[in-house]
Amino acid sequence: MSNEDARVARTRADVSRTVRRLLAEEGWDAVTHAHVARVAGYSKTTLYTHWPSRADLLRIAVESLGDMPHAESTGDLRADLVAEVTAFRTAIEELALDKVLMALAQQGATVDEIGEVRKALVADGERHIRHLLSVTTDERRRDAAVQMMSGVVLCPAVMYGELPDDRVIAEAVDILLGGLGEA
Amino acid sequence: MSNEDARVARTRADVSRTVRRLLAEEGWDAVTHAHVARVAGYSKTTLYTHWPSRADLLRIAVESLGDMPHAESTGDLRADLVAEVTAFRTAIEELALDKVLMALAQQGATVDEIGEVRKALVADGERHIRHLLSVTTDERRRDAAVQMMSGVVLCPAVMYGELPDDRVIAEAVDILLGGLGEA
Repeated sequence: MSNEDARVARTRADVSRTVRRLLAEEGWDAVTHAHVARVAGYSKTTLYTHWPSRADLLRIAVESLGDMPHAESTGDLRADLVAEVTAFRTAIEELALDKVLMALAQQGATVDEIGEVRKALVADGERHIRHLLSVTTDERRRDAAVQMMSGVVLCPAVMYGELPDDRVIAEAVDILLGGLGEA
Repeated sequence: MSNEDARVARTRADVSRTVRRLLAEEGWDAVTHAHVARVAGYSKTTLYTHWPSRADLLRIAVESLGDMPHAESTGDLRADLVAEVTAFRTAIEELALDKVLMALAQQGATVDEIGEVRKALVADGERHIRHLLSVTTDERRRDAAVQMMSGVVLCPAVMYGELPDDRVIAEAVDILLGGLGEA
């Protein structure tokens, strides 16, 4: 890596981190070139040169998240589902994933490139729970089950700005497994 | 009502409708005083005079939604749940309720008054399904069930920009009722 490449990589890491922090603390409105530049300690010109649009700032923030946190499988379906839904809650707490998803929903509808970033993030996020729920062979039934598990965490975040406690997550998993005949 | 009151009421209705349309079609970024004024056909000064902040524009848009659409109860729990979850899907299709909720989530965290508007809207939206699910006496189990039903509609809207078809909604209700021992 040349010195120039190293400098750009460092700038990208600083800017990505700042975008994620602003998204988490102040929301998407705060993610402007001027504000991000000021908080991250770079010039507006530097930001505009590398990432001309706000969608670009969002894209590098999502790319910097890395792979979504997932729980290790134990082979016990109930324990694995509880762990996976809890990992989603952790991603909201630690990575502001709810804010990221809402910003992507807003931008993804109008910016094609962001639509792709969103699709990749959601696919990575759902991969593990879809695998766990492959015990359900009917595709629509599995889709319903996946969204019910996501909903227990994402709905209170979007609707009240709150997250479910461990008992609510456990109840949801028990309802699901009972309904799927896997309890 | 004086002429002046009538004029303000008409302006408010026009502006509210425009804010909802822009939210639905272009997202929250498009809801600026300048853009709303241009599309609704009023001066920026008029908008700033009555509704000084973007949060004010969002508030009158939410107030103009009126009561959330709800299905009539038939007494058949399965049919009533399907109808109620479908009514939520209709509210997203026709009122862009998903975009409204995401804008409220963004503003509600920082603007107190918007936090109240959000709380009232969500309470109205969930009232009926909470009543239907009062067959479940444990509070956390009922919370889990409510969020699972909301999730079937809201999660695909937020994550993929898509809505579930009738079969997915029916599967979700069947899983829930099976899990609650009410099938």
